[in-house]
Amino acid sequence: MAQLTGGDPSLLRRINSAVVLHALRGVDAATLTELVGVTGLSRPTLEGVIEGLVDTGVVGPAAADAGSERKQGRPARRFRFRAESGYLLGIEIGPHRVAGLLSDLEGRMVGSAAREVDEEAPAEERLERTRAVVGEVLRHSGVPRDALRAVGVGSPGIIEADGTVRLGTALPGWTGLKLGDRLRRSFRCPVLVENDANAAAVAEHWKGAARDCDDLVFVLAGLSPGAGSLIGGRLHRGYGGAAGEIGALHLLGREALPEKLLSTTGEPLHKLDEAAVARVFALARGGDAKARDAVQRFIQRLVHDVAALVLALDPQRVVVGGWAAGLDGVLDPLRTELARYCLRPPQVKLSLLGEAAIATGALRLALDHVEEELFAVESTVTARR
Amino acid sequence: MAQLTGGDPSLLRRINSAVVLHALRGVDAATLTELVGVTGLSRPTLEGVIEGLVDTGVVGPAAADAGSERKQGRPARRFRFRAESGYLLGIEIGPHRVAGLLSDLEGRMVGSAAREVDEEAPAEERLERTRAVVGEVLRHSGVPRDALRAVGVGSPGIIEADGTVRLGTALPGWTGLKLGDRLRRSFRCPVLVENDANAAAVAEHWKGAARDCDDLVFVLAGLSPGAGSLIGGRLHRGYGGAAGEIGALHLLGREALPEKLLSTTGEPLHKLDEAAVARVFALARGGDAKARDAVQRFIQRLVHDVAALVLALDPQRVVVGGWAAGLDGVLDPLRTELARYCLRPPQVKLSLLGEAAIATGALRLALDHVEEELFAVESTVTARR
Repeated sequence: MAQLTGGDPSLLRRINSAVVLHALRGVDAATLTELVGVTGLSRPTLEGVIEGLVDTGVVGPAAADAGSERKQGRPARRFRFRAESGYLLGIEIGPHRVAGLLSDLEGRMVGSAAREVDEEAPAEERLERTRAVVGEVLRHSGVPRDALRAVGVGSPGIIEADGTVRLGTALPGWTGLKLGDRLRRSFRCPVLVENDANAAAVAEHWKGAARDCDDLVFVLAGLSPGAGSLIGGRLHRGYGGAAGEIGALHLLGREALPEKLLSTTGEPLHKLDEAAVARVFALARGGDAKARDAVQRFIQRLVHDVAALVLALDPQRVVVGGWAAGLDGVLDPLRTELARYCLRPPQVKLSLLGEAAIATGALRLALDHVEEELFAVESTVTARR
Repeated sequence: MAQLTGGDPSLLRRINSAVVLHALRGVDAATLTELVGVTGLSRPTLEGVIEGLVDTGVVGPAAADAGSERKQGRPARRFRFRAESGYLLGIEIGPHRVAGLLSDLEGRMVGSAAREVDEEAPAEERLERTRAVVGEVLRHSGVPRDALRAVGVGSPGIIEADGTVRLGTALPGWTGLKLGDRLRRSFRCPVLVENDANAAAVAEHWKGAARDCDDLVFVLAGLSPGAGSLIGGRLHRGYGGAAGEIGALHLLGREALPEKLLSTTGEPLHKLDEAAVARVFALARGGDAKARDAVQRFIQRLVHDVAALVLALDPQRVVVGGWAAGLDGVLDPLRTELARYCLRPPQVKLSLLGEAAIATGALRLALDHVEEELFAVESTVTARR
């Protein structure tokens, strides 16, 4: 056997624990003998590993299986992965609402809550609203705060690795906010902050319109589109966390702000006023010529920005979400125009998760973080390279 | 020890061979005892592995080290990695020239050759020119064709995994050409075909303007720009091999072909006529108003396309190569405009490898392929996940 891991006993123990957890997670329960067979570990090593895992609470005794009872003596002890030994929280902090989702260690949802927030609300009010939503979801589901293993957060802006918002023009007071640090005061577990479109991309891959697809671009279509992408199943954040922030592209040479494009009066719309945008779309459907021109300009711009992403990245699929995705007459022109200009046109699908996408993705990122700690055989072995 | 690799003896042997090669490659030579210490393998296992590696020619005996001589008996045998036991070839097949580079298994250059080819030459003529360049570089360096372990090729177009050109409008007869299969007739080793900009990106990362940078976009600036990108040090090809083919972006809503943008007469330039483009730039420097407008349009379009890539991918660095990179007045405006429109402006550098970039990258891809076979501990271990 190649001694790939060298002589570090704690590393070895970590790997062995991960191997055992992997094995237990795939079944309802298993005996020590079964685990010896699956993992290849010696029985004494396995007993030590199981003991450690039981101490942390991640593994516990399972009911004895009648079929496995020995003819003589007591039945063999069985162990199981305790999905209820820890919980994950996914939070969306958006322009118009704050939402929270709670799951166990298997990712099964056990609670949710959401509250509206004014688009003009200052950062402190938005943070207060967030704390209220977190309190509510924990209270309603009866999960103690200390049982949280990780918290994921999705919010607009370019987010640094420590959760600081480097640039976030969509929300008042967001740029420069140490969002990660502020939220960490409320939790004793890791808090991971991610760009909202990135989180939504992860969510659609997990349980939405891209479950069968590892190379996707998720477009959060609003007045100014943002995007998140997965490459080979992994989130592509970019070197500085700014990947997919294509909103500035239309400015090049054209200075065409979306709030002007969609205006029928010459006066720009308020950039977060979704209702005004929906009115323009409704007018256009009703045959209003100015509104139809405005919608046409808006669609052309969305096509252009999405085409830029598609040509740069060549994804298998584009998933369109955000509130503008639901507007009639967005998806079809996007599909037609992309097919016209892209050398290899991608599939274009509507988000399946809708407004739940961002919180769901934030939850998945929290779950990824915990799984990496618990099950990361690969990273520990290959770290030696 | 966790039995991570299960019970497959050939897999185990491969892993052990890779571990030993890794160890030998990092030193001039080593004794069996030294290798036992570094690899953690038992002495009998190690002896078997070394025997196998010596049989394939990749490892050979090294001169005994005087310092390591035993007081009694003969000195311990020493072994070394034989970089001269195999060779790699990197080939550029471009619009105006075909070039070849030859290296040993350490990537040390041992020969090169290049020939011009007419931009209008049919595919068969270009292939014939390629075979001539290959013959020349092998003959001049005295390396027998059978010593080639892998051949890499860089050429314009969207290239499928098997080396077929799915779409290649830059070269006559290129679209649909089974370039990989055609070239494989000349070699008994693997032939890997890659998009030219992708190959150049790999080259600049290996030994050019991005040696210290794992997240980069390489722009092959010509009349219609192509691009290649590395993310986390790995080539990003896209789902269908079309990533970075941003040439179509400017067509959206503007129908602005580059050969029209740069024209001073109203008649479009020939799309591969670099001399004509250089004349326009020279006229512009001389103060000609029409030429200055044309150059301005050309630069704006390059900025726009590169900005699209930067906003989508957020690379640490943009490396600009291709013939247009050398034109006065391209790099500075690009840097200024990108800084204006990108939320996190990347570094902008000129290619260091110049016209050698594509063949160098093709060579590196061939070397990667062989190294993966020889040294791939990671892929074999983690394949089990």
